[in-house]
Amino acid sequence: MAGIAPLRDRMDEVTLEMVRLLKERTEIASEIGALKRDAGVGVADEAREGALRRRVAALCGEIGLDHSIASRFLNALLNESVMVQSEGRPTHLSVFARARELERRGRRIIHMEVGEPDFGPPATVADALGGAVGAGMFRYGDAAGRPELREAIAAHASQWGRAVDPGEVMVCPGGRFAVFAAMVSLLDPGDEVIVVEPAWPAYRDCALQAGAKVRAVPTSLEGGWEPSPEAVRGAVSENTRMLVFNYPNNPTGKVLPAALQDELIGIASEHGLYVLSDEIYAEYAGGGWKSVLGHGYEKSIVVQSFSKSHAMTGMRIGYAVAGPEAISRMCRLQALCMTSVAEPIQHAALAALAAGAPGNAALIRRRLGVLAGRAREAGLEFAEPDGAMYLFARTGMDGTALAGEALERGLAVAPGEGFGNYGGFVRLSACRDEKTLIEGVDILGGIMGERA
Amino acid sequence: MAGIAPLRDRMDEVTLEMVRLLKERTEIASEIGALKRDAGVGVADEAREGALRRRVAALCGEIGLDHSIASRFLNALLNESVMVQSEGRPTHLSVFARARELERRGRRIIHMEVGEPDFGPPATVADALGGAVGAGMFRYGDAAGRPELREAIAAHASQWGRAVDPGEVMVCPGGRFAVFAAMVSLLDPGDEVIVVEPAWPAYRDCALQAGAKVRAVPTSLEGGWEPSPEAVRGAVSENTRMLVFNYPNNPTGKVLPAALQDELIGIASEHGLYVLSDEIYAEYAGGGWKSVLGHGYEKSIVVQSFSKSHAMTGMRIGYAVAGPEAISRMCRLQALCMTSVAEPIQHAALAALAAGAPGNAALIRRRLGVLAGRAREAGLEFAEPDGAMYLFARTGMDGTALAGEALERGLAVAPGEGFGNYGGFVRLSACRDEKTLIEGVDILGGIMGERA
Repeated sequence: MAGIAPLRDRMDEVTLEMVRLLKERTEIASEIGALKRDAGVGVADEAREGALRRRVAALCGEIGLDHSIASRFLNALLNESVMVQSEGRPTHLSVFARARELERRGRRIIHMEVGEPDFGPPATVADALGGAVGAGMFRYGDAAGRPELREAIAAHASQWGRAVDPGEVMVCPGGRFAVFAAMVSLLDPGDEVIVVEPAWPAYRDCALQAGAKVRAVPTSLEGGWEPSPEAVRGAVSENTRMLVFNYPNNPTGKVLPAALQDELIGIASEHGLYVLSDEIYAEYAGGGWKSVLGHGYEKSIVVQSFSKSHAMTGMRIGYAVAGPEAISRMCRLQALCMTSVAEPIQHAALAALAAGAPGNAALIRRRLGVLAGRAREAGLEFAEPDGAMYLFARTGMDGTALAGEALERGLAVAPGEGFGNYGGFVRLSACRDEKTLIEGVDILGGIMGERA
Repeated sequence: MAGIAPLRDRMDEVTLEMVRLLKERTEIASEIGALKRDAGVGVADEAREGALRRRVAALCGEIGLDHSIASRFLNALLNESVMVQSEGRPTHLSVFARARELERRGRRIIHMEVGEPDFGPPATVADALGGAVGAGMFRYGDAAGRPELREAIAAHASQWGRAVDPGEVMVCPGGRFAVFAAMVSLLDPGDEVIVVEPAWPAYRDCALQAGAKVRAVPTSLEGGWEPSPEAVRGAVSENTRMLVFNYPNNPTGKVLPAALQDELIGIASEHGLYVLSDEIYAEYAGGGWKSVLGHGYEKSIVVQSFSKSHAMTGMRIGYAVAGPEAISRMCRLQALCMTSVAEPIQHAALAALAAGAPGNAALIRRRLGVLAGRAREAGLEFAEPDGAMYLFARTGMDGTALAGEALERGLAVAPGEGFGNYGGFVRLSACRDEKTLIEGVDILGGIMGERA
């Protein structure tokens, strides 16, 4: 290997020079630290960090260095502790876990905390599972999913506004993994993600796992749960890489007017942001819902799942629809983590897709109507949901305290705090029969009455 | 805070100068990578790295920089060059992907590149899958796994040298996810992981995903594939957090003498390292194999899977056995990524565990014997495997070129390069019937004969 020795020598020189600079940097940092301590000022300084990131990004452009390499490097330098997880924050999942524990001890609990249908998957799903081993589906498969399932999904997704190619589909273990894979494989530490809130907590948790920063754009009951384009624009910085929203919305049931959604995608497009659109409640949308696929924006990533549409929550299967470059990066991560989704589960999903589940949406809509009527009588304040399977209601008291008290009385509901800065709210899921839903609301109403 | 502004300006200047040097370093790394590829040499070079580490350590002494700061910094830099250099490295998986593509175009390929049995799972697995939906197993479950499966696994694992509690078990999608979860949830960027090589490439890939630095401890055919305790000791630095090994070994088939394994665990224990022991070939061990569970070291993490033991590769289910604190961190990551393993698959694994697969080990051992005999005749050099399902053989030519040529002739084998610095080797899997294995070796022998 002629020529390698001088390259290596130069590489060592460069490395040692960097270590000398590291020493200088460390000394300056401790001088600044001492000055700050004397002045009684905190150590972290996000504005300064942001400015430095922008200078590094500009330099990368100038000298032609891959920005993701520089970003990782900078992250190591800044010695960021990435995992400041949302430890101990009460969510629908922490309530669910406690509820299951109580059940194991023999208590009866009304589950209005999770979005889990009480009905089952299409009948053909059981047959497909039973036949999978006989059909040889126990061998290693492609990371992106079985070819026939990707084709069926592409055909299914093509109803949402544009023709989808099977190469734009990744089959994965639930919508959750699609969110995780998109964030971990497309973002670098220090990147920013805008999340319209209230929102499913997984967006924030996955962004933190990716070392990214979340900028929340809150919406309000008074504002009809609509994000203002100005607020979204104001949250964009030079480090922003992704805009995340979810319609029909969990927890509010909101469906965005198409013109407003167009405008948000326009903002993302201006800044070259990925649009991560979680459309897991598409089958539970009322009229007026539009998939972001219909916008034809090439940096959009649609998250989908069989969990809600086909009542297959515990089967852990969903998919992402995105451009081939994003799909390829997400698939590389999936291959690294777990090779692929279990082959029999993919076979079951193919059967579910073929069968469809036409009655589910009407059933949930009827239940939502009953739930809403009773909740209004009980004094809960909320906007009539356009879709999904939830009410997100202001309670007039602390939502977490209310959820805790309700659980004592056999009712599990999700505290609003889990979805953002909504401490006065709770989320009620309409996934139980009407009688049970009424029973649940009456327990809530009872507690609220005692406190009033 | 007078005086802080000029310090900050100087700090930014230093940082930008470092980024410029980073750019130069990245360019040199890709030039070296290209030269190495042309010369057929592996990417990692522990001796060179060791020399650089010593120079950096000396410089730290000279200029008065904390050595642990410099060391973490160096790890981040070295990982960066490995990533730049190792894109497109040939592995058993890249050969598998190309082989499947050729098959789709109608070619017949003999698969001796992957460890995938040609026999199926126990008969009761199909029934269990078929009955899962009827038994209500389509609902959300615990991140750690179904309680009855964790209990059954704990009972099964208790045969390996100590009583295992169900709370020490995480059910996950394959042994691969156990490795991923352990590394991503237990390591911080800049931490070091010692991997005994040759090794399954997933250890290195998952460590890189975690931002950790891999220090390889190579073993050799001449040395009977035994790592020397001195080499392991020499690879430990103040940043080392984990020691990874895998017995029965993929690719060599080596089973470590219990006394040597004791000694390695002793070294890990002295330095408080996690021991990640991949024991996925436990059921294919000859005599003398001992699980690390038998050592009772509290920071050990055992990786297991149903893929090889029960021929369920495409079912994607495995598990980790570790202390409650490690299990809890790994489960939190699993909950974040995908909630849990699909419930029907867990039900199938429970049936597989109950049924056992007593004939598989004897069958593979017989095939390995036939494979070894023919391979020796063909001039391949290797150590008789103690267990697992592979031969790792020196070919007298470049293993990657040999694998490429073999694929042209209808035989897929894994190039040694995928397992570390073993460019002259190939791995042959004994997962086909004896006639096919002989046919495969004869194709290899033919190519080697032509080149001799």
